[in-house]
Amino acid sequence: MTLREMSEQRKQALAAEFELTSFPDALKHAQDVIVAQDDAVFRAQAHASNPPLIAAMRYAVRGGKGMRAFLVLESGRINGLTSARTGLSALAVEYMHAYSLIHDDLPCMDDDDMRRGCPTVHRKWNEHTAVLAGDALQPLAFDLLCDPCIGDARIGLKLVRGLARAAGHQGMVGGQMMDIAAETRDTPYSLDQIIAVQQGKTGALIKWSATAGAVIADAAEDEFNALDLYGEKLGLAFQIWDDVLDIEGDAQAMGKAVGKDAARGKATFVSHLGLDGAKRRARDLVTEASDALNIFGDKAETLRQAARFVISRDS
Amino acid sequence: MTLREMSEQRKQALAAEFELTSFPDALKHAQDVIVAQDDAVFRAQAHASNPPLIAAMRYAVRGGKGMRAFLVLESGRINGLTSARTGLSALAVEYMHAYSLIHDDLPCMDDDDMRRGCPTVHRKWNEHTAVLAGDALQPLAFDLLCDPCIGDARIGLKLVRGLARAAGHQGMVGGQMMDIAAETRDTPYSLDQIIAVQQGKTGALIKWSATAGAVIADAAEDEFNALDLYGEKLGLAFQIWDDVLDIEGDAQAMGKAVGKDAARGKATFVSHLGLDGAKRRARDLVTEASDALNIFGDKAETLRQAARFVISRDS
Repeated sequence: MTLREMSEQRKQALAAEFELTSFPDALKHAQDVIVAQDDAVFRAQAHASNPPLIAAMRYAVRGGKGMRAFLVLESGRINGLTSARTGLSALAVEYMHAYSLIHDDLPCMDDDDMRRGCPTVHRKWNEHTAVLAGDALQPLAFDLLCDPCIGDARIGLKLVRGLARAAGHQGMVGGQMMDIAAETRDTPYSLDQIIAVQQGKTGALIKWSATAGAVIADAAEDEFNALDLYGEKLGLAFQIWDDVLDIEGDAQAMGKAVGKDAARGKATFVSHLGLDGAKRRARDLVTEASDALNIFGDKAETLRQAARFVISRDS
Repeated sequence: MTLREMSEQRKQALAAEFELTSFPDALKHAQDVIVAQDDAVFRAQAHASNPPLIAAMRYAVRGGKGMRAFLVLESGRINGLTSARTGLSALAVEYMHAYSLIHDDLPCMDDDDMRRGCPTVHRKWNEHTAVLAGDALQPLAFDLLCDPCIGDARIGLKLVRGLARAAGHQGMVGGQMMDIAAETRDTPYSLDQIIAVQQGKTGALIKWSATAGAVIADAAEDEFNALDLYGEKLGLAFQIWDDVLDIEGDAQAMGKAVGKDAARGKATFVSHLGLDGAKRRARDLVTEASDALNIFGDKAETLRQAARFVISRDS
């Protein structure tokens, strides 16, 4: 194939991204982008030694749903961007998410043996490899956001700062710390406290993903705010549904242990709202998330489907 | 004090930074900048909850020598910058360094109880707090590098990408992984392999620090390269001297256990070069580091003093 043909093929592939697709297709596309970009990142570093470290890093990234990558790609698409501009940011947030899962699974944290149907990193390798693979995925995420293909430096820096805050003590790590503290508290968390845990532990990264496309496109404030609100509602619905699945889910479909929170007597959305109340709340949030995107019209249909998927999934 | 007086005092303080000072004074200044900036960072986030997480993060940053912060400030000073421009980058690299020490001390890594004369974070709190405090210091470092006071976005992004690569699988984490692997190898590392471990584990962050001032000042390539070479030689001399101190040092002065490498039969610069050979090599490197700065003339005298200090310290 000549270079011109390759570039033509690439152009067609990128043009195809502007077609409205179903959520399952878009999610599959996000997974393909993750694999292709991850291959490219590590191919570019073919000289890198440290085989077990790199194997553990890449192992942790594979097999995920790619929900956060999807949000980056799709929020980019409705703002007129192809994965040529958004792909590295999609991979960056999956690296960040993968690192957090590795560390959350450690014996000193949630102590889980299985993740996504496979042994967790510290079970497959060992604890120090798990700590270090997580430690190395985090800076790699920031590294990718500095790539000039994303846009001018001002945009890259905005992505970096946003991801840093979403990941840090006021975001994901802060939420995880509060979540672990829940297990040794005398009084269970209130509903507001559970929401605060969720907003940090999973919400911040989901919001960053849902708004990343608007940031990269340098979209107007209205577009950014609409996606921000969508991300907030979606993230909360996602967590509520996780609590529902922890009761109703099947360990095999989930690829990890279920019923752990209930067994520990930990406060959850279900313990506060009841199973039906939690489901109702999640459904309301999905409607609110969908409505938040009115400004984008039909273009946002895939994001709306994604929100509905969140409360229909069984894993 | 009126605002005008305060600003006058601040101006004088900044002007004083341009005076050539002795290395001990400059290092003390670096420590003061770390404390003041760290206070400012967390004061700006007074609403942040999670007291034990934040306490552990800040505990890990205090009490260090501040060598990396000194390098950032001093490489800035010889390029015409005050700490108003370089202070946050100095703090950022100390956050990154502190996180790496917390994780290196974990039971699954070096399993150390003492650091800088105080209990390590996992001994003072617990393991999950140590993992998470480290995990939160890392993004906070990147967050600081996005501050507009550092310069235009292009510079911020260059600092982020440089620090991300210095910290990641091809830098600090990669070096730590190789260092741990040394303990279970059948054949000890060769001298070249030990140098590769050092270049990752400690060298990359030292080089980033020594060149940060040139990056922030947008200095010419010659200035950058001179500081890069200085940082490389300095980092290697530093590690060789650490190996010397592991043999000759006093646990009390060091604030941590000594003789661990020798006890484990691990290859070190001393095991390869002998005690006298290692000292000679370190001295040669200090001369080379000093010479690398010829382009800066007398202005670089404090950096040269710093290099000499590295091979005279007893801790």
